Amino acid sequence: MSYQERLEQQLAFIIEIDKLKRILRQTVLMDASRRENSAEHSWHLAVMAIALAEYAPNPIDLLTVIKMLLVHDLVEIDAGDTFCYDLTGNETKHEREQQAARRLFGLLPDDIGQQLSQLWHEFEANETSNAQFARALDCLQPFIHNCQTNGGTWRQHQIRRSQVEQRMSALAKGIPALKDVVDRLMNEAIAQGHLTDG
Amino acid sequence: MSYQERLEQQLAFIIEIDKLKRILRQTVLMDASRRENSAEHSWHLAVMAIALAEYAPNPIDLLTVIKMLLVHDLVEIDAGDTFCYDLTGNETKHEREQQAARRLFGLLPDDIGQQLSQLWHEFEANETSNAQFARALDCLQPFIHNCQTNGGTWRQHQIRRSQVEQRMSALAKGIPALKDVVDRLMNEAIAQGHLTDG
Repeated sequence: MSYQERLEQQLAFIIEIDKLKRILRQTVLMDASRRENSAEHSWHLAVMAIALAEYAPNPIDLLTVIKMLLVHDLVEIDAGDTFCYDLTGNETKHEREQQAARRLFGLLPDDIGQQLSQLWHEFEANETSNAQFARALDCLQPFIHNCQTNGGTWRQHQIRRSQVEQRMSALAKGIPALKDVVDRLMNEAIAQGHLTDG
Repeated sequence: MSYQERLEQQLAFIIEIDKLKRILRQTVLMDASRRENSAEHSWHLAVMAIALAEYAPNPIDLLTVIKMLLVHDLVEIDAGDTFCYDLTGNETKHEREQQAARRLFGLLPDDIGQQLSQLWHEFEANETSNAQFARALDCLQPFIHNCQTNGGTWRQHQIRRSQVEQRMSALAKGIPALKDVVDRLMNEAIAQGHLTDG
């Protein structure tokens, strides 16, 4: 491949991923003014990785974690965002996202595309220290948003404490040091009527 | 400082920076549907750093570059976004942003806050290889947006080729390998009437 063709592939990828800014999540911004999109969500997670890196229970490679977080939602450009408590959507999520990964990372020159595709698969598999830390942040961020917006998507979708606890098991695994503060915030949300017990 | 106090500072910072999602830039998304915000812009630049790292003319540390890009616009939470062709706004920009940096990075525990503050100052000074590469991306991204949106902010603010060329000098310095493709895109924009010559 010529230098020119390689650069054209990189620019095509950069143009294509702009679409992630139009993928809306269920979560709303902390001032509740509008729904969050997956691009700004990914940015938030990457900054959180820097701010909270010290709490990773096992050694992590911060560059790998940040790269993973920056690209972990790109598949939503084709597959859409699947709400974590949507059981039907989550049944077909895997196949839709696999196809999306092939197309999107396939826009890049092979060496870069394969690197990012591997990071996405590592995030999905959730087996390495890097992936478990990254995924914990991906759970923590909407949790904080819900706490800051009087229950946010919990109230909107009548989510119960047991569902949040199940979802937050990724946090307990990836950043166990934050379990106490998360439990406290969950108790406060229940006391304030922003989350239903049970 | 206790463990608890340290964690509270980190969470306060994570909550505060959500406001960057509400800072609107002049640039519009590539489908021209709305203005871009500074959080999703920062995400886009960080992914671009991964995709284009090979074109840095001098050795760069990719983790440092990405951290720099992730936090380079945080000061806009207090200081607002200053359009690059706004001469009056740019006169007061420096002092407004210095104050913002002190407040925002000051929310974090000292060690992390100082690290991020130094990265922001390094980006602003534009002297190191890392900063010059990061700043080149910060010029390239809105340039691509304008090319993709029939001239975008160039047409809207009647910007001329000489102004764009002056602005793009940071690109020539930080990623000289992209000069040819940028010149070609600029010529195309002029031929299509999306940018005024002269």
